Amino acid sequence: MQQQIIKGIQNGDRRMAARAISLIENEDVTRYSILSELFPLAGKAYVIGITGAPGAGKSSLVDRLLVTLRKRGLTVGVIAVDPTSPFTGGAILGDRIRMQEHALDKDIFIRSMGTRGSLGGLSRATKDAIQVLDAFGKDIVIVETVGVGQSEVDIIKYADTTLVVLTPAGGDSVQTIKAGIMEIADVFVVNKADLAGADRTVSEVSMMLDLGGTNRRWRPPIVRTITMDGTGTDEMYASIQQHREYLQESGQITKLREERARRDVIDLVEYRIKSSVWGQVSGSAEFEGLISRIMARELDPYTAAVQILGSINLDNCSV
Amino acid sequence: MQQQIIKGIQNGDRRMAARAISLIENEDVTRYSILSELFPLAGKAYVIGITGAPGAGKSSLVDRLLVTLRKRGLTVGVIAVDPTSPFTGGAILGDRIRMQEHALDKDIFIRSMGTRGSLGGLSRATKDAIQVLDAFGKDIVIVETVGVGQSEVDIIKYADTTLVVLTPAGGDSVQTIKAGIMEIADVFVVNKADLAGADRTVSEVSMMLDLGGTNRRWRPPIVRTITMDGTGTDEMYASIQQHREYLQESGQITKLREERARRDVIDLVEYRIKSSVWGQVSGSAEFEGLISRIMARELDPYTAAVQILGSINLDNCSV
Repeated sequence: MQQQIIKGIQNGDRRMAARAISLIENEDVTRYSILSELFPLAGKAYVIGITGAPGAGKSSLVDRLLVTLRKRGLTVGVIAVDPTSPFTGGAILGDRIRMQEHALDKDIFIRSMGTRGSLGGLSRATKDAIQVLDAFGKDIVIVETVGVGQSEVDIIKYADTTLVVLTPAGGDSVQTIKAGIMEIADVFVVNKADLAGADRTVSEVSMMLDLGGTNRRWRPPIVRTITMDGTGTDEMYASIQQHREYLQESGQITKLREERARRDVIDLVEYRIKSSVWGQVSGSAEFEGLISRIMARELDPYTAAVQILGSINLDNCSV
Repeated sequence: MQQQIIKGIQNGDRRMAARAISLIENEDVTRYSILSELFPLAGKAYVIGITGAPGAGKSSLVDRLLVTLRKRGLTVGVIAVDPTSPFTGGAILGDRIRMQEHALDKDIFIRSMGTRGSLGGLSRATKDAIQVLDAFGKDIVIVETVGVGQSEVDIIKYADTTLVVLTPAGGDSVQTIKAGIMEIADVFVVNKADLAGADRTVSEVSMMLDLGGTNRRWRPPIVRTITMDGTGTDEMYASIQQHREYLQESGQITKLREERARRDVIDLVEYRIKSSVWGQVSGSAEFEGLISRIMARELDPYTAAVQILGSINLDNCSV
């Protein structure tokens, strides 16, 4: 089965790419050896991240971007991540529907991913799914994720160029442009730019960029878009291209990918240790005994944790 | 210093409570032994969680709730957590300003916490700060956090009663009432209930609760509030009390706290392992060698992680 999946992905079989992502989502034991074999095939795709509050119009922007990319003959994979949703895979997420028109285009691969598992594995799964689509030969992989919390920042960190989508509506802009977001944005998109307040939003972002200091070598451009009529789509694409060129010319892309490799290996190590710890500790007599003593306030959790640490065996982490 | 902090907390010295929380935030090496000593003093406070999208009016609701609680002679600690903000401690977060009027009340202790560290320690720090305020003798600890992502769910899981705040505005309600939120809400608060669409929001929530099945023993009440004039504040407080009584009469409170103790010990174990792994691996020659080979595509990160796992020593995790 494993070889069938790898061969299938090499031969452009969509079902096999979908299958590999399902194995990743389900935390199947074979996933790491599949990913390991896919690794030499990957490393060519350029990853674009799109994030923003619910209702900011991210899906419509992805729609527009897809048309632009396809016109240029580029093949595209889209991973739509919703950390607050348990829906995944085949499920049609509300605004995913509009993207379905692209589903018949064989050079576009769209996949939704939702919350799975309890080990915080969504950003891990997203990273691995990007690699599948990269190995599958997609020129561009778009990762769309909702919101501005830490889990979303964790997900978007795998992007080469990150677009942060804001809207003039709701006066949320200042709330949204928190430090974490300022740092991850390579391009700001003020969507629904026909609404009142668009100018204010643009100047707020600009002001915050000014406050951020002058020593950053890339100043994120602010693009206005209206998805209804496509206004700003070309400018948005041009900004992505400019950022890509900046990363390449400055050598930043190498640093970025090296840093990502570091984080990736550490993440994998931690993730495996966590799975192993959970497997050994949860339900064990020693653990339950400690919990009873904590409930009786005879023992504090900090001391209990130290005791547990003494009895953990990492030898079976490698599975 | 450590003994001074513990004695100070026992004697109601606010500065020492603040000091302990700062040590927690800064991941000071002494924090676990302080928390360990505070543990026997804690376990009495009732924890109320309040979460919702930015702009939903959480801070104003906390304001109202503070007045209600103080009228009943209860002492209160407030921890305002913003996972998207690097601001913390003394910093005045925008809508925190309104709470400042309570700052002169010696029976109210208010603290903001923002993102610190890279190990995802915010929910850990929140849990530990709750314990400090509990040991400090506060009857009620309110944890307020923004948003609906996974990191916020992680933070709010330490609450005994969780209020999810929605607003009629923006049509965001359906987006917000995602599965994760449905599960954590013990009370729904439809704030800004004077706005058009409040009825629709209430009936949407009610419908989703109906769809959730009939076998849950506690059906979260839906309370309408208007913070401007205080409408619904008493009802909100009554709902919290009802939920508290339900937890106590059904014995759920014991199950909840036992489950929390389990998760807490596991979290502590994982957190210490992560810190230890990071300390041993980051910057080491072996690690950098593996990263170079990954960059050259000679080695994949999955295989690299397995190699690293073989060389990790957990003996120094207990610090």
